[in-house]
Amino acid sequence: MAGSGLSLVRRAAEAVRRTPGWQKVVFIVAGAGTLTYACQDNRALQICDGTGNKKKVVILGTGWASASFLRNIDTSLYDIHVVSPRNYFTFTPLLPSVTCGTVEARSIVEPVRNIVRKRNGTFRFWEAECFKIDPTNKKVHCRSDVGTNIDGNGEFVVDYDYLIVGVGARPNTFNTPGVTENCHFLKEVEDAQNIRKSVLKCFERASLPNLSEEERRKNLHFVVIGGGPTGVEFAAELHDFVNEDLAKLYPDVKKYVNISVIEAGGHILTMFDKRITQFAEEKFKRDGIDLKTNFKVVKVSDKDITMTNPATGEIAVPYGMAVWSTGVGTRPIIMDFMKQVGQEDRRALATDEWLRVQGCEDVYALGDCATIAQRKVMVCSCYSIFKTSHRITISLYGTLELYLKSNQMKGFNDLLKDSDGNSKELKELNIEQFKKALAQVDSQVKMLPATAQVAAQEGSYLANCFNKMKACEENPEGPLRIRGAGRHRFKPFRYRHLGQFAPLGGEQTACQLPGDWVHVGHSTQWLWYSAYARLGKAIHLWKGLQQPIDSNRLIP
Amino acid sequence: MAGSGLSLVRRAAEAVRRTPGWQKVVFIVAGAGTLTYACQDNRALQICDGTGNKKKVVILGTGWASASFLRNIDTSLYDIHVVSPRNYFTFTPLLPSVTCGTVEARSIVEPVRNIVRKRNGTFRFWEAECFKIDPTNKKVHCRSDVGTNIDGNGEFVVDYDYLIVGVGARPNTFNTPGVTENCHFLKEVEDAQNIRKSVLKCFERASLPNLSEEERRKNLHFVVIGGGPTGVEFAAELHDFVNEDLAKLYPDVKKYVNISVIEAGGHILTMFDKRITQFAEEKFKRDGIDLKTNFKVVKVSDKDITMTNPATGEIAVPYGMAVWSTGVGTRPIIMDFMKQVGQEDRRALATDEWLRVQGCEDVYALGDCATIAQRKVMVCSCYSIFKTSHRITISLYGTLELYLKSNQMKGFNDLLKDSDGNSKELKELNIEQFKKALAQVDSQVKMLPATAQVAAQEGSYLANCFNKMKACEENPEGPLRIRGAGRHRFKPFRYRHLGQFAPLGGEQTACQLPGDWVHVGHSTQWLWYSAYARLGKAIHLWKGLQQPIDSNRLIP
Repeated sequence: MAGSGLSLVRRAAEAVRRTPGWQKVVFIVAGAGTLTYACQDNRALQICDGTGNKKKVVILGTGWASASFLRNIDTSLYDIHVVSPRNYFTFTPLLPSVTCGTVEARSIVEPVRNIVRKRNGTFRFWEAECFKIDPTNKKVHCRSDVGTNIDGNGEFVVDYDYLIVGVGARPNTFNTPGVTENCHFLKEVEDAQNIRKSVLKCFERASLPNLSEEERRKNLHFVVIGGGPTGVEFAAELHDFVNEDLAKLYPDVKKYVNISVIEAGGHILTMFDKRITQFAEEKFKRDGIDLKTNFKVVKVSDKDITMTNPATGEIAVPYGMAVWSTGVGTRPIIMDFMKQVGQEDRRALATDEWLRVQGCEDVYALGDCATIAQRKVMVCSCYSIFKTSHRITISLYGTLELYLKSNQMKGFNDLLKDSDGNSKELKELNIEQFKKALAQVDSQVKMLPATAQVAAQEGSYLANCFNKMKACEENPEGPLRIRGAGRHRFKPFRYRHLGQFAPLGGEQTACQLPGDWVHVGHSTQWLWYSAYARLGKAIHLWKGLQQPIDSNRLIP
Repeated sequence: MAGSGLSLVRRAAEAVRRTPGWQKVVFIVAGAGTLTYACQDNRALQICDGTGNKKKVVILGTGWASASFLRNIDTSLYDIHVVSPRNYFTFTPLLPSVTCGTVEARSIVEPVRNIVRKRNGTFRFWEAECFKIDPTNKKVHCRSDVGTNIDGNGEFVVDYDYLIVGVGARPNTFNTPGVTENCHFLKEVEDAQNIRKSVLKCFERASLPNLSEEERRKNLHFVVIGGGPTGVEFAAELHDFVNEDLAKLYPDVKKYVNISVIEAGGHILTMFDKRITQFAEEKFKRDGIDLKTNFKVVKVSDKDITMTNPATGEIAVPYGMAVWSTGVGTRPIIMDFMKQVGQEDRRALATDEWLRVQGCEDVYALGDCATIAQRKVMVCSCYSIFKTSHRITISLYGTLELYLKSNQMKGFNDLLKDSDGNSKELKELNIEQFKKALAQVDSQVKMLPATAQVAAQEGSYLANCFNKMKACEENPEGPLRIRGAGRHRFKPFRYRHLGQFAPLGGEQTACQLPGDWVHVGHSTQWLWYSAYARLGKAIHLWKGLQQPIDSNRLIP
């Protein structure tokens, strides 16, 4: 894979020429600028671009990664084709606010056609789900959503020169029985809207005249499973919503309201600094939010949630509404694709540092469905050190830097201290000490977190690579190749951590910025908004104001 | 019924005393100010107010009539209980705008609790559907919506001193097969939202790569069945939406869009002046909206709409989305109630001019589910004339006035002319000529139209009657009784026609005001808004701005 950078375009061109079946297709319809063909098997139909001048880039998904790619790609250089079951991008950090109506759903979505509409070049969007990637023939198999009254099964095939896989992940239920049927997730706009309806229904039900006190309590028991940022933020929003608004409208039943957060681990917000975790836990206690740590949910029925704890054993708690927010899992299409490219044993699609999927050609993957298989720090560092006259390149590929940051270490010295268990500062170290320290990093650094920040940075990185592909063909800007001669065409992807935020209700937000800055308070809320503005939404919204079209009208 | 006015309160009090079962109930829960009891049969539960000081008014429904009653009733005089499957009032005239996203759904709804929340007195709302009225025992049987996880079947019984029935009507399909399964209605906010989603889905489906031209046309064929104000306004809104917004986003398929309006009669907007009908038909022609008059829909499948016409016979037209808007029918609960009170043969619940349901005690009906059985003009008028020294009271109960207006007659003389077929003006007429003219009115005047205007005026009229019930008991303000002695307690309900409006797209609205004023143009749009402002929404919205609570957060 490492040597494939230089010949990427050439190989792609060959692959297109090699693609079989072009001679066998039957002409059906000539749309505006696009030719549509029927394959011989008469079942699925195949679409190929008729212009033939530009490379065809097919993008799967319209989440953070794909949208960020679309915002940055120069559409005059490529034919851009997007396949996604959602024709809009969702600003996911505000989803918990939609659940309580603080923010209107239409305010946090943007039609994908609007993202690239204003620029030159071909752009096509198809509202369909890709159910199979065929990297051998360079095709993706798609299916339009069911319930259409089109004849046939709504399947079609799209071929590609470059494929960008950004389909994201699905909520992870850990195969807990009853979760899919009885819990809400919080990944899509529809989820947030359903949660809001459900909360209001619970209040209406609890207000009915023929209920026992116990039944009212049950209806107004809101349970959040998972103490990560999404679950915590939703619990905080819900608390504000209940106390600020609903208590006034439903004064008779407000005393029955109870919000629980169930976390399998010992603490909530474990990915944050301990000070933030502690602050959040104390605030929840003051707010009356019931925090159940070390409880693992084993079953959810339509009436109650069963969970276990070493101290109490198995207990069943009745509930009115539950939100499941325990992290993400792999989509079936990705699992199938991973099998095809020999990655069966991985949890997500592995790419190299240039976001190319390992084991196939011309396929890129980014966002939550992918993970960058970081090269071993030790190998690279030692190699670099002895190649660059003993100067330590500690930020090599970002791996080491990220490890230091996530462990709240200020510099390389901290790592050495830690590695030796020695508290006094080291001035000098031999190669063995150095190797030992790096081996520790290698054993612990796993992958970039599944966040909007990572996905958006990957999308814009890849778009920039595509934009300067020609220029970099001649003047490669990447690092020296470890194996083989010359330089890599592009610089590798390097994640810049902008910090993490967790809104805790009452307009208080905890934030952890690079450089060990931790802050909790009202002003942080604005910092939070501005950090996301950087990721493109606010800027794009501002741009949107100049457009004559009201994009909000176009979104369900 | 005519003599029951004076003794209404006395009889109600007796009826409450006579209500059986109070001694047999078993105490279960004491809520805040309300006692809840279980009936002996253990199946349904009964709720009775524990205070006993005030009369209990139960209102069914939260539409125009009920909301208008709630806005005007003095809640310090009565215990107000509302039962409705919808916990919000919908500003229905803007529903067609919601279908195209011009207006946000949350902007046209208002939580029913907010309407009365600010005043003193008991107010309770139960989100449930009343499925049976029992006027003999003065109880209503209600059922909470399914899908609750409460044990039991969610049924309860509410007793009343006064019952106000404002459940509205349901869409009338005329038993046409396939309508309920395949067509959208346009009566609720959810309907409007589903229509919007459906329109966007049609565009996405038509954009898919593997469709024939015919299939694209089919997907983008939008059909409106019914040429009344709602259907016409929706067709006009959709035309604007498609041409202003969607054509830009879906340039490749805009040429396939077709909007059809199917009307069984010879013209659209037949309830308006002919000039407006003509203008609308010409505007639709210019806009390319396909107007199919004299076509009767006989069947709707998931693929096509079958209709008949004397000239063409039966034809089947493929379509992408259809909206059914052909008027209203009677709800099952009202049909059942009509049987109980001996009104089997009627189309809607008949009330007298004081909105009291004929055939039972202490039950009022208003809005689309009810109709005022106007007394014969001839009887009343002749009686009045000879009682009030030969002065003709032409506005008696509004019946005659409404007839003159709806037939564009300026005065009583027009009626006489018309009656005799004589064009010269009459200065004098004998009693036989006069009777003949009135008999003509009696034969043609049927009922007030099923509009928001009528419902809102009925609601505020009835609330005012309830507010001054005590005062009017001593000093009746109504007319002299035709049968029996003394005066009626209240003035009868009298409808004041404010005009009719039909938005025709492109910011053009046709309006027909009292006094034969017809206007079409841009300025009329504002007249339209201001006319509805009169009906309370705008004023209430303005009031809402002073409230600390954001009512929009509370609505799905």
